[in-house]
Amino acid sequence: MQLTPQQLKDFDELGYLFMPECFNAEEVALLKQEASNVLAQQRPEIWREKNGAPRTAFAAHTYNDACNILASHPRLVKPLQQLFGEDVYVHQFKINAKAAFTGEVWQWHQDFPTWHADDGMPDARAMNIAVFLDEVMPINGPLMLVPRSHKAGALKSEHDLETTSYPLWTLDQPTVTEMVEKNGIVTPTGRAGGVLMFHANLVHGSAGNITPYPRRIVYLTLNSVSNAIAKPTRPEFIAHRDFTPVKPVADDALQRYIGKKAA
Amino acid sequence: MQLTPQQLKDFDELGYLFMPECFNAEEVALLKQEASNVLAQQRPEIWREKNGAPRTAFAAHTYNDACNILASHPRLVKPLQQLFGEDVYVHQFKINAKAAFTGEVWQWHQDFPTWHADDGMPDARAMNIAVFLDEVMPINGPLMLVPRSHKAGALKSEHDLETTSYPLWTLDQPTVTEMVEKNGIVTPTGRAGGVLMFHANLVHGSAGNITPYPRRIVYLTLNSVSNAIAKPTRPEFIAHRDFTPVKPVADDALQRYIGKKAA
Repeated sequence: MQLTPQQLKDFDELGYLFMPECFNAEEVALLKQEASNVLAQQRPEIWREKNGAPRTAFAAHTYNDACNILASHPRLVKPLQQLFGEDVYVHQFKINAKAAFTGEVWQWHQDFPTWHADDGMPDARAMNIAVFLDEVMPINGPLMLVPRSHKAGALKSEHDLETTSYPLWTLDQPTVTEMVEKNGIVTPTGRAGGVLMFHANLVHGSAGNITPYPRRIVYLTLNSVSNAIAKPTRPEFIAHRDFTPVKPVADDALQRYIGKKAA
Repeated sequence: MQLTPQQLKDFDELGYLFMPECFNAEEVALLKQEASNVLAQQRPEIWREKNGAPRTAFAAHTYNDACNILASHPRLVKPLQQLFGEDVYVHQFKINAKAAFTGEVWQWHQDFPTWHADDGMPDARAMNIAVFLDEVMPINGPLMLVPRSHKAGALKSEHDLETTSYPLWTLDQPTVTEMVEKNGIVTPTGRAGGVLMFHANLVHGSAGNITPYPRRIVYLTLNSVSNAIAKPTRPEFIAHRDFTPVKPVADDALQRYIGKKAA
């Protein structure tokens, strides 16, 4: 999958690209089932909300076959190879649960300041790609993006150790207000299978989820091989040290995996 | 203002009525300013979020002139007199701040169980009328309603003393899930000046607000005079003991107040 000139232009200008229904119903059904299997496990890679509900399953591609395929999926990997003009490796792979009723907030932040401060990532040549495993609606804690905010570069961030169980470098209210006054907020929503890529310096956050609708999303973080992290401080399952370039699998790899499982 | 036959039918069926732009820009500007004045005060009627931001200003109609007019405004009072077929009195008047960035959740609940358990209100012949003081958007913690849920009557509720600073009788997750599976969720949104009335047994809640957009709403609770509370346990400013029927003011009373202030 290659991005079109229009998509490249949009990404440059807005800092994000949303591709609805990038994965089909069968692929989505598999990924949903596998995500449920993963989130039901008890292991150190799976972090929990203050109330005990699973919040984030890290490194699921290292202990789940379908996630492993997804981490090398050409619909995710090739656009980033194209954007960065070089090979990429998996910096992080996580399933964010945003559970029904109890899914907690992600405060406003850019991704790069955390990767820079905590992992020693030199430049903003990495990116998060979100794969929707459930329908993302306006009411179940959708990702909120501030379009064009990536143009501001890395903004002053502070280490938030209080809001949730996940330490994050977050932006202060005046900074967010200024960005939002200039650019507004968008919330790409849509059915499971949609894919959202956004620039490492794009300002984003998400509110809590009190609805009965879970909002599970896989985040694959791919980093340019020339931009490998230099001073990791977080566990290996949060910031991988294996910089081997991803080789994209076949476009039908998930379908084939389904066939193999059924056989 | 009288409700039309269609509005009466919709209310009966869905359990709520939304009237966009019920108050004009001038009236809204006044109410916004007065709400800011109220919320800036330090007094026992003003409750705060865990972080100190104002959450709810109770009984503002007893210490703010514009709020006093609003509590007797015919656009709010007359529809309820019509629906209940009798006079009504002010059971509660509050400004809910849902502050920018820090506005907290209101868990799923019906209003009547709290009025019944805490105030000894005999029947569900009271109602909340919401007046939007800011634009209510999908992203700034809009009220979420479960249409038709009022038909289920008062559901089993439990006293939630933990989630926020405001004790509330709330519904458990299986009950909400069942209601939502049947009826879905709606979030009436729109510009300041909109008015939303909803049945005392309508299931509703609202998520936190992390956006820079505050979402202040006035809630006027009017109760039928024949349904006066019998066993109040909450302070007078939360559950009023003065059952004098409201006499609706003139429709242009807020406008006249603006003129008087300017003079």
